Amino acid sequence: MNRILTLTTDFGVSDGYVAAMKGVVLTYLPDAQIVDITHHVPPQDIAAGAFAMYCACRFFPAGTVHVGVIDPGVGSNRRGIVVETEHFAYVGPDNGLFSGVYAREAVRRIVEIENAALMRPQVSSTFHGRDVFALVGAHLLKGVPCDEVGPEIDDPVTCDLWGVKEEADALIGRVVSVDHFGNAISMISRARIDKKYPDGAFEIAIGETRFDRICQTYANVEEGQALALYGSLDTLEIAVRGGSAGRVLDLKRGDEIRIQARSEK
Amino acid sequence: MNRILTLTTDFGVSDGYVAAMKGVVLTYLPDAQIVDITHHVPPQDIAAGAFAMYCACRFFPAGTVHVGVIDPGVGSNRRGIVVETEHFAYVGPDNGLFSGVYAREAVRRIVEIENAALMRPQVSSTFHGRDVFALVGAHLLKGVPCDEVGPEIDDPVTCDLWGVKEEADALIGRVVSVDHFGNAISMISRARIDKKYPDGAFEIAIGETRFDRICQTYANVEEGQALALYGSLDTLEIAVRGGSAGRVLDLKRGDEIRIQARSEK
Amino acid sequence: MNRILTLTTDFGVSDGYVAAMKGVVLTYLPDAQIVDITHHVPPQDIAAGAFAMYCACRFFPAGTVHVGVIDPGVGSNRRGIVVETEHFAYVGPDNGLFSGVYAREAVRRIVEIENAALMRPQVSSTFHGRDVFALVGAHLLKGVPCDEVGPEIDDPVTCDLWGVKEEADALIGRVVSVDHFGNAISMISRARIDKKYPDGAFEIAIGETRFDRICQTYANVEEGQALALYGSLDTLEIAVRGGSAGRVLDLKRGDEIRIQARSEK
Repeated sequence: MNRILTLTTDFGVSDGYVAAMKGVVLTYLPDAQIVDITHHVPPQDIAAGAFAMYCACRFFPAGTVHVGVIDPGVGSNRRGIVVETEHFAYVGPDNGLFSGVYAREAVRRIVEIENAALMRPQVSSTFHGRDVFALVGAHLLKGVPCDEVGPEIDDPVTCDLWGVKEEADALIGRVVSVDHFGNAISMISRARIDKKYPDGAFEIAIGETRFDRICQTYANVEEGQALALYGSLDTLEIAVRGGSAGRVLDLKRGDEIRIQARSEK
Repeated sequence: MNRILTLTTDFGVSDGYVAAMKGVVLTYLPDAQIVDITHHVPPQDIAAGAFAMYCACRFFPAGTVHVGVIDPGVGSNRRGIVVETEHFAYVGPDNGLFSGVYAREAVRRIVEIENAALMRPQVSSTFHGRDVFALVGAHLLKGVPCDEVGPEIDDPVTCDLWGVKEEADALIGRVVSVDHFGNAISMISRARIDKKYPDGAFEIAIGETRFDRICQTYANVEEGQALALYGSLDTLEIAVRGGSAGRVLDLKRGDEIRIQARSEK
Repeated sequence: MNRILTLTTDFGVSDGYVAAMKGVVLTYLPDAQIVDITHHVPPQDIAAGAFAMYCACRFFPAGTVHVGVIDPGVGSNRRGIVVETEHFAYVGPDNGLFSGVYAREAVRRIVEIENAALMRPQVSSTFHGRDVFALVGAHLLKGVPCDEVGPEIDDPVTCDLWGVKEEADALIGRVVSVDHFGNAISMISRARIDKKYPDGAFEIAIGETRFDRICQTYANVEEGQALALYGSLDTLEIAVRGGSAGRVLDLKRGDEIRIQARSEK
């Protein structure tokens, strides 16, 4: 039986906050297996949290409960929700954090967290991660069905996380993350590029830099050279072999990546 | 049966030190469940380590063993101790690290670690976390009773971690931590403030900043504004909505927070 | 039965990469117990990764599988390997990362990873940590024998990680790591120094600094003073009591440490 619960937060790991959440889960469910996705989401950056979950959650076994707490609205009237999909349950604030889930997975239902019996007896106004989401997650893991959590809703907050759009003569995306290695990651998928440019006659533009092919791997270019390739999500990334594209090409989150037909070749 | 052991250290996570401790625990007790409180306590900062443990340890199930290693005196004649309380056992150096435990929990007994059979065969002079504390913790978790560890002591090192004091016309505390979000946390409790000022007619002073009320939640003020509120420990915190009170108000650990009766209202 | 798998990478913990690896392991082997050695190896720094593994892996119980992914050549024709030793299995790229293992442990055999049935169905060209090494590690942990992984090889890539050499009148090593506390660690062992200088009449030189004895512990010198001592690996370290030798003495990785007979005493 799956006893895995993952945590994604913007809490950092210097304070005792993440450990408090783990303690709450383990007090209720001592054999829970808790896995950190990351706790280094930039403070209150919902899109970055959504991206981290998008990259990692899918690799866990069916039945895993994914708790996400990037929660600038804690203590306000923003809703807490559980999103049940074909394979997983997601628990956290209803602020767009699960937009990537709605786009990618078969959602069975979304419920608002209302049942106080599934929360800690005293719910602080600043730490629902500990007092609500962690414990609701533990209950779900133990088998509490979603409809005991609260009423179904059909209007979750969603946002456009990836910024991919198609124009007559171009595919446009943006850098959704510059990772630890300095790779600039977009969500323009290989499938989409192949469909738009079946002959491969395109050019990629980001800032002043141009690429006219997508490499197989870093080793296709020399040390220190920039390249475009499909990364581990099978989407377009800009990288520098043995270096940081973020630093070398001065790329940052939000930068536009534009793919268009090659003019003269 | 509880198999949970937590670790709080100032080792960071870039070297292999924390993993070495985990290996020692798991070699002795393969089904131990090890949870990190934090390893980012500032080097040799006993009070900061005590605060991290204070925030997180209480949320774990009864029977959990909490190992804390902020140990500037390793290799000197400072004692190693086990503190047995109603719910937990704490293992680490006797240097004040468990002062928060003595203040908050019902202590059953404190013993000095003397039994070499519970340590690694070779005890290095620089890493008792690995060679003594981790393994003693594992033994306790497996059921070794405290009195096999060593003789009882009644003079543990304690220090005033929180600096809360009451004067005729004021409650005084200090910033004991500026957390990852920049919230400045004191240990002046809601209960103490309510008792001293049952009519709520007080003013809070920190540096040049004044607050005349304690908010329910961040959402009570505008984005970017400072507020006083009760944090997740139910003690007084100074925060900035959507920002860092540490940066915006230039607050740091040790800064005095003073609550006094409002002069004219 | 041992279900422990450790991870050492240069992925950092801000992205979802490490968690993706854990998900892959847990999907295949839900009761695996995954322990982080460190994910803060400097990007693509094979020697630093080897050192982290050298410090920590030995403390785990026999049967533990150690996965290491510092892999600048991912996607090129560098081999992936499994190193089976008396106590452990190591999984990762064949780029020198396991040089410390070859030097210290009894190696039974080394095989190249070839069996696609032990990998994820789609192997990306940039993330073999997730698609190859994590899953091969999980298979080994479950009991798949080494010879199902691929053919034996006898020419693994090795490099001189520690730089220790002996001259007629000197023992020479280098700083292989400056740790979180600023201690400068060499791999010159106590045994080697004792053998070369049985009378203890030596002098240690690093940069402009000289030491004529090796202390038992930090407490042998005053706060703020530099000292030489045997660290937790029982090798020579340079430290500053209550401070950082790295900063105070301006030491960094690669700096030479020279032990020679004392001239006149």
